[in-house]
Amino acid sequence: MPTITLLTDFGTADGYVGEMKGVLCTRAPAATIIDVTHDNAHGDIEAARLAVARYWRRFPEGTIHLAVVDPGVGSERRALAVHCAGRWLVGPDNGVLSPALLVPGARAVSLRTTPDAAATFHGRDLFAPAAAALATDTSLDDLGEPCDDPVVRRTPDAHRVDARTVVGCVISVDRFGNLITNLVPPRYPAAVMAGGRRIGIARVYSDVEPSTLVALAGSNGLLEIAVRDGSAALTLGLRRGAEIRVERQGA
Amino acid sequence: MPTITLLTDFGTADGYVGEMKGVLCTRAPAATIIDVTHDNAHGDIEAARLAVARYWRRFPEGTIHLAVVDPGVGSERRALAVHCAGRWLVGPDNGVLSPALLVPGARAVSLRTTPDAAATFHGRDLFAPAAAALATDTSLDDLGEPCDDPVVRRTPDAHRVDARTVVGCVISVDRFGNLITNLVPPRYPAAVMAGGRRIGIARVYSDVEPSTLVALAGSNGLLEIAVRDGSAALTLGLRRGAEIRVERQGA
Amino acid sequence: MPTITLLTDFGTADGYVGEMKGVLCTRAPAATIIDVTHDNAHGDIEAARLAVARYWRRFPEGTIHLAVVDPGVGSERRALAVHCAGRWLVGPDNGVLSPALLVPGARAVSLRTTPDAAATFHGRDLFAPAAAALATDTSLDDLGEPCDDPVVRRTPDAHRVDARTVVGCVISVDRFGNLITNLVPPRYPAAVMAGGRRIGIARVYSDVEPSTLVALAGSNGLLEIAVRDGSAALTLGLRRGAEIRVERQGA
Repeated sequence: MPTITLLTDFGTADGYVGEMKGVLCTRAPAATIIDVTHDNAHGDIEAARLAVARYWRRFPEGTIHLAVVDPGVGSERRALAVHCAGRWLVGPDNGVLSPALLVPGARAVSLRTTPDAAATFHGRDLFAPAAAALATDTSLDDLGEPCDDPVVRRTPDAHRVDARTVVGCVISVDRFGNLITNLVPPRYPAAVMAGGRRIGIARVYSDVEPSTLVALAGSNGLLEIAVRDGSAALTLGLRRGAEIRVERQGA
Repeated sequence: MPTITLLTDFGTADGYVGEMKGVLCTRAPAATIIDVTHDNAHGDIEAARLAVARYWRRFPEGTIHLAVVDPGVGSERRALAVHCAGRWLVGPDNGVLSPALLVPGARAVSLRTTPDAAATFHGRDLFAPAAAALATDTSLDDLGEPCDDPVVRRTPDAHRVDARTVVGCVISVDRFGNLITNLVPPRYPAAVMAGGRRIGIARVYSDVEPSTLVALAGSNGLLEIAVRDGSAALTLGLRRGAEIRVERQGA
Repeated sequence: MPTITLLTDFGTADGYVGEMKGVLCTRAPAATIIDVTHDNAHGDIEAARLAVARYWRRFPEGTIHLAVVDPGVGSERRALAVHCAGRWLVGPDNGVLSPALLVPGARAVSLRTTPDAAATFHGRDLFAPAAAALATDTSLDDLGEPCDDPVVRRTPDAHRVDARTVVGCVISVDRFGNLITNLVPPRYPAAVMAGGRRIGIARVYSDVEPSTLVALAGSNGLLEIAVRDGSAALTLGLRRGAEIRVERQGA
């Protein structure tokens, strides 16, 4: 009984997600449907990529991840199914599936489109049927031709600018206003410079007073900047792409 | 193992949906619960009707659709269970179930209320128990008396005003700001007039430049007006009910 | 096949809920996951407590309720698993599980933390694994040491101030703008005083005209104040904590 997860930017109110789920229930009646989110920001491929990176390997082998944030729907952009580390992923070829595509050994195929697929709703007419096919033991190769050059997006690298300083940036802002960065938490005494402020590094939110800025190791292993019981994004006025520095302290 | 889908306007935060799911899990433990949405606009029967129209037949036969947008809860409005095309639907008698009721052969019963049902929460005390009863093989006729005159709502018809012009309207605005109309996409060269603008017809969003207005066949087969990577509703300042014209071009 | 319900304040877009569900699917593959909400107001323990109170006993025995609204994550606050009335509950020791903890016979243990748990995401690394363990027949006692003094929160009591008057307050405001109070609906002729207005008591919303204030017995048995087809919170300008009076009328 495979699990199919869903990530979209459709919201739920219009019934589009209902249509997709109907297709899945009809074509893969034994599969379990798990909602990840339908609240991805509209057309925000980068947000979807980072969310997929968080969860795709947390699910057991055999899981099928459907990720449809697809501003290019109906264009010549390809549609992909990917097999990697025992999981499958299905979605548009725009980088949203990069977390799996960048793993050595990942295999991708370009999904065959069907002439009766609505040009504005591949989630229902192309991606959900492909996920349902994988859930009912169709092989990857039966879904399309191998795709050797899928679109991949990468988190930008932080870089060392001098002996004391590493420069990175905010890669996402979460619902709590935490600023997730591409910086590795330093193992040496250091401070974080962000938005013109010097911010101490702690282990947990509660190491600082409420409403205080703090930098700490986030749950994905990267440095994040938070305000205890508040929003670092609002406090600092920063958003995705903002520069963040880690500066070594002491001798 | 039947599937029960849920559409409400309750939001999820207050725990009302949790209560309904608890009733379903208790009374129909073998059923699978699928969320369609809990974000239907508050009291917006028309939005719910259009969402139900999209998804109800996408699910397999045997599915039970629970649709509770019920501004008249506790009043004399009837409560319905409907059987149509192999699916069941349960909800208030206010038009939300029209997409099934309008299909020839649909059968409806007026649900018997129970004296201990909270007058403000029929979703929990009347509709969820009815859905659970259907999921556990109670027959439609055991739930109430036949109802031969349920409330039905219809999408207004577009109409031809002269040899070159068909006039319709916006029937809904989706999360993306797309304007869904009641017009059939023309098979002849034509333009769409909306909000004082003349809009070309294309096949897919990507046929036009970003931020450009475009009309195209939507995923439900009706004409919709979109802005590529933007919102037609905001661009045109239009909402549900706004007049839209299709004008034949050329000789 | 146990059911695991989820209540969080994480939203869904960032993928955190996806991570938790991945852990649950991996560690308790036979469990059914039911979303209650991920839209609890950020850090609002009181809202979570009241939602849990509504739904936890509506689910069948054997259900495991995961409730993670946890502003103290990573601090010295304990983490709990509770057994009560045949259900299990898992969450931080901040009062969110009070509805079960206050029931005579409830048993709580303080969860053992693991050194590799991310200090900012116990939902994924501590609470979800504990819920999965319970779903796979680990006993409560195997999860930690008994906890005899869990944090409990109670709804404040209403109190009688004179022969004719009972004073209470708003304990929550729901999505519809209904004001939920801690007052028992009076069985004698009475009026409700709120926000300087005198409000009649009715049985259902439709007993009054649209846009009219009304007080009635809510679906949890307590008095609530509503505006038919509108928002009492907006109409009265009241929120959680506001004083509400019930005044006996007549002789």
